[in-house]
Amino acid sequence: MQKLKDKILKEGKVLPDSVVKVDSFLNHQIDVKFLEEIGKEFYDRYVGEDITKVITIEASGIPIAVEVARCFGCKVVFAKKGKTKNLSDAFYETEVMSYTHGTKYNVCLAKEFLGKDDTVLIIDDFLARGEALKGLIDIVNKSQAKLVGCGIVVEKGFQPGGKELREKGIKIESLAIIDNIDEANQKITFRGE
Amino acid sequence: MQKLKDKILKEGKVLPDSVVKVDSFLNHQIDVKFLEEIGKEFYDRYVGEDITKVITIEASGIPIAVEVARCFGCKVVFAKKGKTKNLSDAFYETEVMSYTHGTKYNVCLAKEFLGKDDTVLIIDDFLARGEALKGLIDIVNKSQAKLVGCGIVVEKGFQPGGKELREKGIKIESLAIIDNIDEANQKITFRGE
Repeated sequence: MQKLKDKILKEGKVLPDSVVKVDSFLNHQIDVKFLEEIGKEFYDRYVGEDITKVITIEASGIPIAVEVARCFGCKVVFAKKGKTKNLSDAFYETEVMSYTHGTKYNVCLAKEFLGKDDTVLIIDDFLARGEALKGLIDIVNKSQAKLVGCGIVVEKGFQPGGKELREKGIKIESLAIIDNIDEANQKITFRGE
Repeated sequence: MQKLKDKILKEGKVLPDSVVKVDSFLNHQIDVKFLEEIGKEFYDRYVGEDITKVITIEASGIPIAVEVARCFGCKVVFAKKGKTKNLSDAFYETEVMSYTHGTKYNVCLAKEFLGKDDTVLIIDDFLARGEALKGLIDIVNKSQAKLVGCGIVVEKGFQPGGKELREKGIKIESLAIIDNIDEANQKITFRGE
């Protein structure tokens, strides 16, 4: 998505450890008009699929998922982070490794909102090592819903998550794939450039 | 907002300690079409105000704030929870007491996204003791932006937050105010009924 790449180059900030911040339009401030365009782009990439639920994880994934769900005319369910293990059997649960924080956290989603009759599109803002995405896929698998694919706004192509998941047969549509970050010169190179 | 009250009565769940769960359409699963109606209702209540930023706090407030911002044609900024104190002066910060978890957490918002030229509407899903809302108001005051008012989806009128803030002159528009919860009979009574 060229407009996204332009926006990342113009407004994104490169921080140490190959962190790219897009706080001006996606992760802290939200540019609502641009968010609509992102939602429509994901819709175009999955149009024709009979999506019944868009699944994401709190917090930054939520507004993106809502825009996509609006296009498909379905509901969003966002998985919740950091809850202690639920003793009830009312939740699908999985554990996710956070390399950023060096810890593991629990992710849960209520069984009443996802089941075998659902056809799912997973949406998230970033894909790097893919830990959060693997957690969401695990939850969808546990629910026996049909996973159509994933939609990612920014993929870090130099980290292994996207490659690993595609090799497993998971469809992933990323609107911008960053293949290199030159921290010293604050230069971002996208795949195919 | 009658449709919201009907939905709370139909789909809401009363849990111990006067907790009302609206996970089926607002806090876990999101009913996107209904969310649009909520956004329009807040717009109607603040129409004519020249809102430049809608401010909320992660996570459940975000999709509501996006719907409101769409109506006003402005951007959202969501405050971030639970970060350790920022040593930089790039953030407005405040501390919020969580009675639910018995702890305090830090809330921050980057200064670059809110300033004295902004006219702000604060949006959140719930108002009970008002701690999160007071934190957001504190941040808006620190930014020297003009606060027009607050929009709350569900206010617990039997808890003191709304009353305290209105007495301080803060305008609060709540779409449903719950005045009593009868836990034993799972009965919710709204203000004015």
